[in-house]
Amino acid sequence: MNAPIGIFDSGIGGLTVAHAIAQLLPNEQIIYFGDTAHLPYGDKSADAIQHYSAKITDFLLQRNCKIIVIACNTASSVAFRMLKNYLADKTPIINVIEPVVRAVVNSHFKHVGVIATKRTIQTNIYPATLNYLQPDLQISALATHAFVTLIEENVHKNKKVLDALIEHYLSNPDFDNIEALILGCTHYPIIKHDIERFFEQHRSNAKAPKIFDSIETVALRVKEVLTERNLLNTETSNTPPIHHFYVSDYTQAFEQTTETFFGQKIRLEHFPIWEMPILDN
Amino acid sequence: MNAPIGIFDSGIGGLTVAHAIAQLLPNEQIIYFGDTAHLPYGDKSADAIQHYSAKITDFLLQRNCKIIVIACNTASSVAFRMLKNYLADKTPIINVIEPVVRAVVNSHFKHVGVIATKRTIQTNIYPATLNYLQPDLQISALATHAFVTLIEENVHKNKKVLDALIEHYLSNPDFDNIEALILGCTHYPIIKHDIERFFEQHRSNAKAPKIFDSIETVALRVKEVLTERNLLNTETSNTPPIHHFYVSDYTQAFEQTTETFFGQKIRLEHFPIWEMPILDN
Repeated sequence: MNAPIGIFDSGIGGLTVAHAIAQLLPNEQIIYFGDTAHLPYGDKSADAIQHYSAKITDFLLQRNCKIIVIACNTASSVAFRMLKNYLADKTPIINVIEPVVRAVVNSHFKHVGVIATKRTIQTNIYPATLNYLQPDLQISALATHAFVTLIEENVHKNKKVLDALIEHYLSNPDFDNIEALILGCTHYPIIKHDIERFFEQHRSNAKAPKIFDSIETVALRVKEVLTERNLLNTETSNTPPIHHFYVSDYTQAFEQTTETFFGQKIRLEHFPIWEMPILDN
Repeated sequence: MNAPIGIFDSGIGGLTVAHAIAQLLPNEQIIYFGDTAHLPYGDKSADAIQHYSAKITDFLLQRNCKIIVIACNTASSVAFRMLKNYLADKTPIINVIEPVVRAVVNSHFKHVGVIATKRTIQTNIYPATLNYLQPDLQISALATHAFVTLIEENVHKNKKVLDALIEHYLSNPDFDNIEALILGCTHYPIIKHDIERFFEQHRSNAKAPKIFDSIETVALRVKEVLTERNLLNTETSNTPPIHHFYVSDYTQAFEQTTETFFGQKIRLEHFPIWEMPILDN
């Protein structure tokens, strides 16, 4: 019960997930691992991502985590099944895709849109999972990768640039009739209101699609699984839990952007999980 | 003389450099290595980049390269001195920063601007090198990282988005009086004309700063060094040389964007220089 929740991502974008979990479950300690040495996973092969994810999961298990949360869409889509088999139900594992997919399917839409990084779109994981649960659902999926950089560079605060980019991507005719839009990247909740505003201005309010982000549904799913397994920390302490945020490669730039993702400044700890071989070939 | 020119970068952005060299020296064979497994270097520590660069240089030497070109600003700024010592003058090595810096200094400006990725700006390499050669030169340096993603995602072709981003960055008051602007990233030559247009529209033509990109000056420097050392391939063959473009992690997405950077589609070859350790801790 007192064991921590383990969360990992390719970088610090998954801190939005960590924050949603910390908000919903304030008694729980969080161990976060951002694999900044290999960031972004979106450009890596499936083999490489599976290898990295296995090693990081091992690291979180060594720190006694009672549940593993893959706070990364790319790792969720290519490494979840492998990790699930690897853990063999001894430790529950949650991916960042399934909870939001189930929430959308439960709403019985006819046509939904998905935006995500190039890699997540290429894996086809959202359409495949949605249609597995609701075969008649029409899905329009679009890679909207530049949002990630805009957010990481704090340029999203320039509304002229952000709105031009939102219009560039979301005025795609495929999205004309969607009833819901899934934000399939953990960065996107940060610009959720700007996306909502775009649709409100470009459609009558009655028809604006409902925006689903994954982070709230993931946090709810974590609570559900911990409750089912009797692992929820019910002790209320006077001192808040001390979270740990590890990164595989440390730069100050990451530290400076934690506030964007976690809502407050946090301290990153360098943990060089990938030992560097010596140079001699 | 018939030995190839070795070029490396963290990814495929350095293909702009490879292309400039191929254009200037059409007889020369090129061996290119893009370390896509660790892309982008801008987020990595100096230690990590030095290690990667040494290993890649070794790879290029094993392929008998007669000269090494670091087609990456980040690797140039943190690994050039180490590699220069490592090669001990047996094989010449060119970085992507020095040639353009010398060209700017030779023009005797009073105030110049530099735009580059966040990491290149943080290293302070352009101001430090410029002021080493011209102590009274005033320099305004700015991180303009989101240009990189826009180009890699082909969003730069949407002029509304590109122009909004150019205005976001370049309307910075520090750039009001610059006489020249250095494009300190190998991606930026692709939007050089858009940057020129921004200044022409926001200043009288007489005062628009001169834009310096690094790729042409680097190609000229390679020719110069090969000529000095009598290593220039002067044989004119009927068949053009067969270049090789290696990447440490292969995805189709890279293949699809080679045209943006090299001006024509090329075939990437996967060379897994970083062997993956087995999973057992």
